[in-house]
Amino acid sequence: MQLLQDRIRKDGIVKAGNVLKVDNFLNHQVDIDLLNEMGKEFYRLFGDLPINKILTIEASGIAIASITAQYFHVPVVFAKKAQSINLDGESYTAKIESFTHKRVYDVIVSKKYLSPEDHILIIDDFLANGKALEGLIGIINAAGATVEGIGIAIEKGFQNGGAEIRARGLRLESLAIVDKMDCETGEITFRT
Amino acid sequence: MQLLQDRIRKDGIVKAGNVLKVDNFLNHQVDIDLLNEMGKEFYRLFGDLPINKILTIEASGIAIASITAQYFHVPVVFAKKAQSINLDGESYTAKIESFTHKRVYDVIVSKKYLSPEDHILIIDDFLANGKALEGLIGIINAAGATVEGIGIAIEKGFQNGGAEIRARGLRLESLAIVDKMDCETGEITFRT
Repeated sequence: MQLLQDRIRKDGIVKAGNVLKVDNFLNHQVDIDLLNEMGKEFYRLFGDLPINKILTIEASGIAIASITAQYFHVPVVFAKKAQSINLDGESYTAKIESFTHKRVYDVIVSKKYLSPEDHILIIDDFLANGKALEGLIGIINAAGATVEGIGIAIEKGFQNGGAEIRARGLRLESLAIVDKMDCETGEITFRT
Repeated sequence: MQLLQDRIRKDGIVKAGNVLKVDNFLNHQVDIDLLNEMGKEFYRLFGDLPINKILTIEASGIAIASITAQYFHVPVVFAKKAQSINLDGESYTAKIESFTHKRVYDVIVSKKYLSPEDHILIIDDFLANGKALEGLIGIINAAGATVEGIGIAIEKGFQNGGAEIRARGLRLESLAIVDKMDCETGEITFRT
């Protein structure tokens, strides 16, 4: 998606350790007009599927998922990050290893909000090693629901998460795939 | 706002300890059509003010703030909850005591995204004792920015946060104010 690539080039900051900061428009300050264009694009890509719910993960996925949901006219469920879980059997849980924060955390989704009848579009801001996505897919599988598609804003194509998900036959669309980035020059190369 | 009150009556669950669960439509599963009506109402209430930015706090404020921002055509900034803060001087911070989780956490906003030129509408899902709101107001004051208004989805009118904020002369509008709720009968009384 050219608009997003242009914005990443303009406002994204490449930092050492393969970090791409998009705080300016995506996950701290949020450009809602840009998100609307991204939501429309997700609808163009996935609008033919029988999606009845969007699943994302707090916190930075919520804005994109909510704006996108308007085009699909479906509710959003966001998986919650939990420090300590009450294992009351009322939630699906997954353990996720965070690349950014170098720690393992739990995410939970109440069993009330996922069922075998659900056809889910997963929406998230970033895909790198795919650990968060694996957690969400695991939760959807545990609920007996169907993963219809996965829409990502920015994929780090030089990490293996995207390739692994595609190899499993899941329909994954990333609006911008970064194949290379250089923290010395700030140069970003997108997959075309 | 009648639509929201009706929905709280229908799907809200009153629990012991003055807990009102609205997981079904507001802060775990999110009804985006309802949020759009709430966003329009916030615009009706605050649209006359020179608002150029909406500030909220992760995670559950993000959906409402993002949908609302579409009516104001302004960006959203969400304060991040931090376990441990890098005190690098690049962020405004506040300590917030959580009613729900019975602990103190830090919230941060990058100095890049708040300035003395900013006229802020704060949006959040709940107002009870007002600690989160005090934190956000403190951050806005530290930045030298202006609090134009505060829009809340659900205020617990039997706790003191709302009264304190209004006593300071700040413009606070809550779409539903719960004056009383009974965890035995499930009955909810709204301020009219």
